[in-house]
Amino acid sequence: MKYGFSDKVKYLKSSAVRDILKVINQGNIISFAGGLPEEDLFPVDAVDQAFHKAVTSSKKSLQYGETEGVPALREALTERMAEKGLQSSPEDILITSGSQQAIDLFSRVMFNKGDVILTENPTYLAALQVFESYETNVVAVDSDDEGMVLEDLEEKIARLKPKCIYVVPTYSNPTGKVWSLERRKKLLELAYKYHVVIFEDDPYGELQFDTEDAPPSIASLDKQNLVLYTSTFSKTVVPAMRIGWIVGPHQIIRIMAQAKQATDLHTNTISQHALVHLLHDFDIDAHIQTIRDTYYKRMLVMKDLLSKADIEGLEYIVPKGGMFFWVTLPEHFNTTELLNEAVKEGVAFVPGAPFYVSDAQQNTMRLNFTNSKPDQIEEGMKRLVQVLESTNVYA
Amino acid sequence: MKYGFSDKVKYLKSSAVRDILKVINQGNIISFAGGLPEEDLFPVDAVDQAFHKAVTSSKKSLQYGETEGVPALREALTERMAEKGLQSSPEDILITSGSQQAIDLFSRVMFNKGDVILTENPTYLAALQVFESYETNVVAVDSDDEGMVLEDLEEKIARLKPKCIYVVPTYSNPTGKVWSLERRKKLLELAYKYHVVIFEDDPYGELQFDTEDAPPSIASLDKQNLVLYTSTFSKTVVPAMRIGWIVGPHQIIRIMAQAKQATDLHTNTISQHALVHLLHDFDIDAHIQTIRDTYYKRMLVMKDLLSKADIEGLEYIVPKGGMFFWVTLPEHFNTTELLNEAVKEGVAFVPGAPFYVSDAQQNTMRLNFTNSKPDQIEEGMKRLVQVLESTNVYA
Repeated sequence: MKYGFSDKVKYLKSSAVRDILKVINQGNIISFAGGLPEEDLFPVDAVDQAFHKAVTSSKKSLQYGETEGVPALREALTERMAEKGLQSSPEDILITSGSQQAIDLFSRVMFNKGDVILTENPTYLAALQVFESYETNVVAVDSDDEGMVLEDLEEKIARLKPKCIYVVPTYSNPTGKVWSLERRKKLLELAYKYHVVIFEDDPYGELQFDTEDAPPSIASLDKQNLVLYTSTFSKTVVPAMRIGWIVGPHQIIRIMAQAKQATDLHTNTISQHALVHLLHDFDIDAHIQTIRDTYYKRMLVMKDLLSKADIEGLEYIVPKGGMFFWVTLPEHFNTTELLNEAVKEGVAFVPGAPFYVSDAQQNTMRLNFTNSKPDQIEEGMKRLVQVLESTNVYA
Repeated sequence: MKYGFSDKVKYLKSSAVRDILKVINQGNIISFAGGLPEEDLFPVDAVDQAFHKAVTSSKKSLQYGETEGVPALREALTERMAEKGLQSSPEDILITSGSQQAIDLFSRVMFNKGDVILTENPTYLAALQVFESYETNVVAVDSDDEGMVLEDLEEKIARLKPKCIYVVPTYSNPTGKVWSLERRKKLLELAYKYHVVIFEDDPYGELQFDTEDAPPSIASLDKQNLVLYTSTFSKTVVPAMRIGWIVGPHQIIRIMAQAKQATDLHTNTISQHALVHLLHDFDIDAHIQTIRDTYYKRMLVMKDLLSKADIEGLEYIVPKGGMFFWVTLPEHFNTTELLNEAVKEGVAFVPGAPFYVSDAQQNTMRLNFTNSKPDQIEEGMKRLVQVLESTNVYA
């Protein structure tokens, strides 16, 4: 039987990461592939209590709710963001089914076919998937260790008149990079000069290893209402709740709420109420500190083993937070081909190529260090380095 | 500050129903406007237990999950649907954030600008909103008490070559109508003859007042894999979980899952696991019977008061299930204008006009009987009939 799909379907790609995850969940494979938080850190008792309160304290929390999100949760978020210097009002917040939905709803209300979006290169794969599904024209801006290269950025803004600049400036997925404060300010200046909206995707901002070292969000520096900021509780509480949020110009948030109404009416209200109770009853900041400490130790284990690999030209960025190492191998490596070999040897990673907007570098890979215990990281890295070294020999 | 939105935004309308709901939630207004289930029937203890089990029995249920949905829930749905004659496989089911998302994802992967969708008239408002947001061409088919009028349907299929026929054939929103078995079969024959996909939206199918009287779903009669069927737990358990599902041709479900991956990765996994436990531990069918009995009694109270209204030409359809009365007033009534008057007198309804695809009848209204207690229905109907009668005098 043949069915007539919409033209947009050809832009829908299944995520390479998720396709790999499906395979490697079978068998004795140590996976550095996914972007999963450590399950042993899930605050099960606190989540259990929070859901118990959410379900039993008011029948209203089991009824249909407001599309914009539970007011008490939006108020709590306003307070939490203010502590980090991001001033907002609950009316400027939309609760979403994970921050992925924030990217999708934003795209839905902003982009026409052919609209230009500037991004880093490489950047968050699933954002690229969304942008492409709206038939936009995603263009890469050169980056260095501080963020986007300003000359290239301004040239492309002036020439291409982008509708939006999409950035993951803090412990980025996939590279783990952090934009400098200077570069954040300059990005804003250019956005003001050319009137371009900035979309700041910040799922990892809370996962910094050195609290002295964390620059403020771009949204917190914005004085002209041109930045949308999205984050999530998936990395700091549990992913299964699917609670993210987006804050930004009221006019855009309001239209996104209308789009959300047509999309799924509203986000799961039980989870929203549970989060309100959790934020009230549970010391989430102490919990986040535990997550940071654990991930930091794991990062160091992986770093140590990467530094010992006997492969000339292997480079990696030491992450200051987040969940990933970004590794660049000598040019003759092709990590997509290497993955099959690695899986045979019992270790998995994500090839870097799908994260690129253009000029994909086949010799890159993303390694997650948060979902494996230190001894698994040691064993997995042993296997991986072995595969790399033996491939290197035959190059 | 001005922002450049996408062209699609002009097709986004806020739901008239939800806008009204916002107003009437203030004050001492008896509302027949929403489509809300009765909160006192929410199985709070069972939901509480189910969430407790979901959160505490496995950390995997707190982690990221499969886009298609939790396998155990899809298996349970396969069994439940089979009991009602709808044969399927878990691979042909996609779990969605309410059935609203099923309509949206289906639209996203199927429709190009200008594609024709045939619907009943009036029909489910929020489906119209979704279809219009994809810039489709929604065309109304004439209906009578048995369902769509076949001559008009075939003429429009042959002439307009629709991509899809959207129907709410069982205790429809807004009219409460039920399609006859004969008409269901004829619809399928026409779909086969012209190769058109049918989208069967069935949120109310479980809410029948006379179990002898319930015709099989159109999907259960389908032999050629041309029907998609969506339903929800919002009316039978609680809306706040936001769990719906869609079952249909694997090829379409698979593409919808890819679209869902970009949209929100996956549906809230805690709620999905909670539902698995609930379906296992709790007698949901006995619970649904209680809901039916309660709603049936309330329907009778409203019917009695409608029948006593002293307005010549007032007509209504006696629902055999579902949540709504559809009332047609004499032609000089305009229910949109009447609503303000009614709200002043402390009663609310939804004007019928927004439910129409074309030829909107301004003298219609939808009355919900499930979210008010019998004494509230009596008082609310007294107020409403008074407003109607006094308006009638001055006509």
